[in-house]
Amino acid sequence: MNIQEFFELSAGKWFSHRTSHHLAFKQSEDGKSDIVIEMLAADHPEVAKLCQQYEIDPKHASCGARVTWNGTMEWDEEKHTGSTVLVTVPNEDNPNEGKLLREMGYAEKAPVAGSYKMGSDDALTLITEYETMWSEERLWFASPNLRMRVSVLKRFGGFSMASFTSEIRMGGTPAAAKVSEAANSASS
Amino acid sequence: MNIQEFFELSAGKWFSHRTSHHLAFKQSEDGKSDIVIEMLAADHPEVAKLCQQYEIDPKHASCGARVTWNGTMEWDEEKHTGSTVLVTVPNEDNPNEGKLLREMGYAEKAPVAGSYKMGSDDALTLITEYETMWSEERLWFASPNLRMRVSVLKRFGGFSMASFTSEIRMGGTPAAAKVSEAANSASS
Repeated sequence: MNIQEFFELSAGKWFSHRTSHHLAFKQSEDGKSDIVIEMLAADHPEVAKLCQQYEIDPKHASCGARVTWNGTMEWDEEKHTGSTVLVTVPNEDNPNEGKLLREMGYAEKAPVAGSYKMGSDDALTLITEYETMWSEERLWFASPNLRMRVSVLKRFGGFSMASFTSEIRMGGTPAAAKVSEAANSASS
Repeated sequence: MNIQEFFELSAGKWFSHRTSHHLAFKQSEDGKSDIVIEMLAADHPEVAKLCQQYEIDPKHASCGARVTWNGTMEWDEEKHTGSTVLVTVPNEDNPNEGKLLREMGYAEKAPVAGSYKMGSDDALTLITEYETMWSEERLWFASPNLRMRVSVLKRFGGFSMASFTSEIRMGGTPAAAKVSEAANSASS
């Protein structure tokens, strides 16, 4: 699978269930969210706009996605909603690795560029460095309708959080039929 | 890393925090456990005994481990304690893959043989087939003192559960110093 295929398979509506393990406190926190992922073609205006923010020639972008979420966290009462645009800019010598441009993420309030690596095992690894934080996220598909993500967060050189997200495809795509089979068999 | 090195790095005392996502119910369940992993040499009597139960010549075993746990689950009040012996029996043509013999696991009450595969990315994948279930678990080290596990469980052909476990090394090994650094930095 290449990065475009990974984005294509990610497109759609997902129920996303995230559990964060706060390592120092030995506590976990749950978050649930509906997520919509739309694939953006490399020549989409939003892709070009994000490239320009990073002073990158838009013709080097290989694909993009808009991610919109609407969810709740366990430890507060607020609704968490938002959206971000992601754009991949592959390395010239190896399109399986490159830069990941991000409009705005869940945690950050300013644009942050990370890097991506599409593995030979079809897992996508994203690494983002912030001023005082470093995060690595691994995403993969257990099936076309079950996406998994594991991330670790380092602050000041030490691991502070590990998070796990299971994402179940929702809605009426043909592939989604298999998910309701899974759900049904689980309750039988 | 080969399978023996993975077992060696796993030896010690760990605080294990597991969260299971029950996919059909969109609910999660936490479990916390102290785990002790002792490496057993290939010629250890317990390794030989387990091989004999599976009618495998003990000389084909490459290594073994005894895992002892003592923990609690969120959804019941009972103490969960127990122990099991694991033994790896590599394939003759490729020692990175083979059988994983198991005395008794957390879920099963009878001996079950699975398979293991040590990946080029230093992750260990374990696959176990039961009568009506199939499980795949991936284990890897984020650092020598932070072990991670993700497992998926299929029942009757559909995914029913995804679990994530973060394991922090406890106690007085030299490597463990880095863990307390991580914990300290997280709370600062």
